[in-house]
Amino acid sequence: MSPSRGHTQHTQLGRPLPTLFIYTSIPIALTLIAHPLLPLFVPQDILDKFPLPPQPTYPALQANVGFALLAFIGAVLSVPKVGEAFIAKGLKGWDQLKKGSNRNTGPWIPECLGLPCASLYLLLMMLFIPFPFSHIFQGTTQHGPGREAFPKGELTLYLTSLLSLMTATMLGFIDDMFDIRWRHKLPIPLIAAVPTLVVYYAEGGWTWVVLPASLGKLLSYLGFGGWEGTKSIDLGFLYYVYLALLPTFTTNSINIVAGVNGVEVTQAFIIALSVAFNDLLFLPVWPRWLLVLLGNIGNPDEGRVLSWAAGEVVKRHLMSLYFMVPLIGVTAGFLWHNWYPASAFPGDTFCYFTGMAFAAVAIQGHFSKTMILFFLPQIFNFILSCPQLFGLVECPRHRLPHFNASTGLLTPSRVVFDKPPPFKTKITLEILEFFGLTEIERVPVHEESGSTKTSKNGDAKAHPTGSKKPTRIMAASNLTILNYLLVVFGPMHEQTLCLALGAVQVASSALAFGIRYGVGSLVYGGDRR
Amino acid sequence: MSPSRGHTQHTQLGRPLPTLFIYTSIPIALTLIAHPLLPLFVPQDILDKFPLPPQPTYPALQANVGFALLAFIGAVLSVPKVGEAFIAKGLKGWDQLKKGSNRNTGPWIPECLGLPCASLYLLLMMLFIPFPFSHIFQGTTQHGPGREAFPKGELTLYLTSLLSLMTATMLGFIDDMFDIRWRHKLPIPLIAAVPTLVVYYAEGGWTWVVLPASLGKLLSYLGFGGWEGTKSIDLGFLYYVYLALLPTFTTNSINIVAGVNGVEVTQAFIIALSVAFNDLLFLPVWPRWLLVLLGNIGNPDEGRVLSWAAGEVVKRHLMSLYFMVPLIGVTAGFLWHNWYPASAFPGDTFCYFTGMAFAAVAIQGHFSKTMILFFLPQIFNFILSCPQLFGLVECPRHRLPHFNASTGLLTPSRVVFDKPPPFKTKITLEILEFFGLTEIERVPVHEESGSTKTSKNGDAKAHPTGSKKPTRIMAASNLTILNYLLVVFGPMHEQTLCLALGAVQVASSALAFGIRYGVGSLVYGGDRR
Repeated sequence: MSPSRGHTQHTQLGRPLPTLFIYTSIPIALTLIAHPLLPLFVPQDILDKFPLPPQPTYPALQANVGFALLAFIGAVLSVPKVGEAFIAKGLKGWDQLKKGSNRNTGPWIPECLGLPCASLYLLLMMLFIPFPFSHIFQGTTQHGPGREAFPKGELTLYLTSLLSLMTATMLGFIDDMFDIRWRHKLPIPLIAAVPTLVVYYAEGGWTWVVLPASLGKLLSYLGFGGWEGTKSIDLGFLYYVYLALLPTFTTNSINIVAGVNGVEVTQAFIIALSVAFNDLLFLPVWPRWLLVLLGNIGNPDEGRVLSWAAGEVVKRHLMSLYFMVPLIGVTAGFLWHNWYPASAFPGDTFCYFTGMAFAAVAIQGHFSKTMILFFLPQIFNFILSCPQLFGLVECPRHRLPHFNASTGLLTPSRVVFDKPPPFKTKITLEILEFFGLTEIERVPVHEESGSTKTSKNGDAKAHPTGSKKPTRIMAASNLTILNYLLVVFGPMHEQTLCLALGAVQVASSALAFGIRYGVGSLVYGGDRR
Repeated sequence: MSPSRGHTQHTQLGRPLPTLFIYTSIPIALTLIAHPLLPLFVPQDILDKFPLPPQPTYPALQANVGFALLAFIGAVLSVPKVGEAFIAKGLKGWDQLKKGSNRNTGPWIPECLGLPCASLYLLLMMLFIPFPFSHIFQGTTQHGPGREAFPKGELTLYLTSLLSLMTATMLGFIDDMFDIRWRHKLPIPLIAAVPTLVVYYAEGGWTWVVLPASLGKLLSYLGFGGWEGTKSIDLGFLYYVYLALLPTFTTNSINIVAGVNGVEVTQAFIIALSVAFNDLLFLPVWPRWLLVLLGNIGNPDEGRVLSWAAGEVVKRHLMSLYFMVPLIGVTAGFLWHNWYPASAFPGDTFCYFTGMAFAAVAIQGHFSKTMILFFLPQIFNFILSCPQLFGLVECPRHRLPHFNASTGLLTPSRVVFDKPPPFKTKITLEILEFFGLTEIERVPVHEESGSTKTSKNGDAKAHPTGSKKPTRIMAASNLTILNYLLVVFGPMHEQTLCLALGAVQVASSALAFGIRYGVGSLVYGGDRR
């Protein structure tokens, strides 16, 4: 992991490549991809002489893993190659949490390298089209109905998702190029979702929501007239509003937890892993007892029973896997260069692109509620940020943690109050402090004028409040999940903080699975597609 | 047409907008779009009281025209709005054929404004999806089989074309941003065509070519064994090679005829008009006698006979129209700002985007040969350029016409030979001169050393060759269609040259129609789908 920084005065050309891994992976990837193709293109008499290993149950999924490996290798190789060109075109940033880094002189780190990653991913996803959708595979590698016998309609969903992803990438790049204002940025993921939503509509999309039986019982207790079992209601237009807000949510919630090397990419990586894991649970390859043990995951009989609905659910999750597995590959490849100390920054392009990927599979796969569960840390961050976003507490332009050059550690960044904050701010901060969500620094009232500015960096410790003198709030840690982690665990190294956030993301994915398959099956009583 | 140049020192903010036209067009566009929707969303009792005008035969096509008007208005309004931001980001060029324009100080004209045009076009094309493809239109506005009853499969073709267009736009923008080298540029349209080709393949694409009866006769005359009537042969993989080369051809052939204000956009505009006109001929709305008179255009009975094949041909050309009509709109809107004196340059983005649009409709609509016919001026330009492209004659970096600042007119730019050119160059140029394709300037052999450099600008007239003294070739006009027009018609104003190229393009479209429906119907004997 030793970085090769400082190749030149101004650029950092990325860490050394994992050469051995790359050169062993390429043949593995190509074998995974070529294996399902061989029976189609190699004459039968040759195959009789040199028999192939038996075809997997999911040949397209095997090829997909091959493409994911190529995505990883491609990202690792291409990011340092294009970095110089990005810096030359002004797509560059300075690393605010490094010693000797400066807004005017750098060292410059190429920004917006989500672009080559997204381009690579999209190209590979285009080349993958024949595997699940080609007529040539129908009948030859099909092991029974409901497995990989994709109807043409699925190709439409696939193409629509690609179109939305491509739009998100392009808009993200335009945003990175022209620095679109925050207000104008918000609807961008919505525009990118247009293909998905329009095709969802044109195909006569599903706008029903299943209400849990327990809600019916609750309503009947309250005297509103309940119902027995689950009930579906048609949300109609409102459902489209919900679907339209989903990409805005997934995109911006990744984008907002940023500023520390590797943190955006780590989030996307773990969410993609979680979605893929969830998808895998729906494939009819697990022993029934395991699924029952795990709380009836994925309706254990789905995929085995050859009913229409069961096949549908398997297909949707297979489709989601096709998008998530290469996304894991490309994200891991980019993380190689974005990890502390970063030699490439993701830019908004990366956040738009990954956010749209999550939204697209959730919409097309009909598992948007499960997807939202995987964003628990981001939702926590958003709720924690609300007092600052909505003006209850002052919001400085940057809220990323503060770098203490003498210790080399990060401490929470602070919002500093030059005069006593208004009552609403005071009460908000004190409530947050009570729950341990912020760290407040107080000064005795008579000391007010002098020392406020100097402690802006947040290195000063809070004054002991037991001194009886009347005090006032002078500073509070900024309300983000990254600062919260620093408040809870104390000052940390940048890399440790990124790891901590990754750990939180993993833990909340575990919690999400618990909610989805534990609480969810109690609430919905088994009918959860 | 009076330009509002010089708003600021460095930028030209575009010519005044056609305000009256814009504000009258918006309601017309919205009416065209809303009309087919009204019977679906307005309750029947209101419609009974306020009857609508009768629905058109092609409601989606009517909405498409509305979208084309919006594309025109959008391009006219958005191009000047974003110009400043493009210049600020270094996406700018100087106008080489203007007095007082300079490579170092400008005045700068924003480059690469194909990007907002392409983005606008793509957004409108996405919003158009429900009109031809939505389930809600099936049955309500359908006037018989083979009209607008699109099967789901057509949606796949539509989405694929959008995906290819989006890819072309993104790659074009990346090219404009990072100045990709000429050699690396060539495969870009091929990458953009990947979605189209892969889906064409995955759907079990057609790889047959119809050979004309006359070729069979010719072969039998030559003793190779001919055949009666037309014959189809399966080109297989070679057909994909042909399809893959088509976008490379359409894209680069527009890109190569460039350098004069408005010339790229004019080409694209006229080609789009020609394709749309050709598509219209296939709709079963024309009186039969007219089609027979025009040489059995579009198989006069197609679309009336309710056979599968006839409906297919109508659908394909309807699909092509859906892409071409808004393309005409957006191209016309951009031409408003790109026309002499240009206040916006198209950039490679524009050429990639329009070139890919032509290739996509030709591939999906199975009329690639007809499409190639609409590129006759570009083919002529390519063939004329060959001696310079392949090194027979020296090729300077820029071959655009020379601007004579004293007359304000353009003259052919010249390649100048400091020493006598080698024999192969001499003989090539003399052959071209014989056909009037180049203008050669000769000097007596003993004058060789002195005055060559000074006449590089091409203002000097060729010496009379009747003076008996031995002469040698000192300069020749560059081998492009623009220089050729200047050789034939003499020095011209920049605007006149663009008009002249437009006229050539129109004339060769007329010739193309003659070949397609005159010669073509003789050769193929009526079976031309």
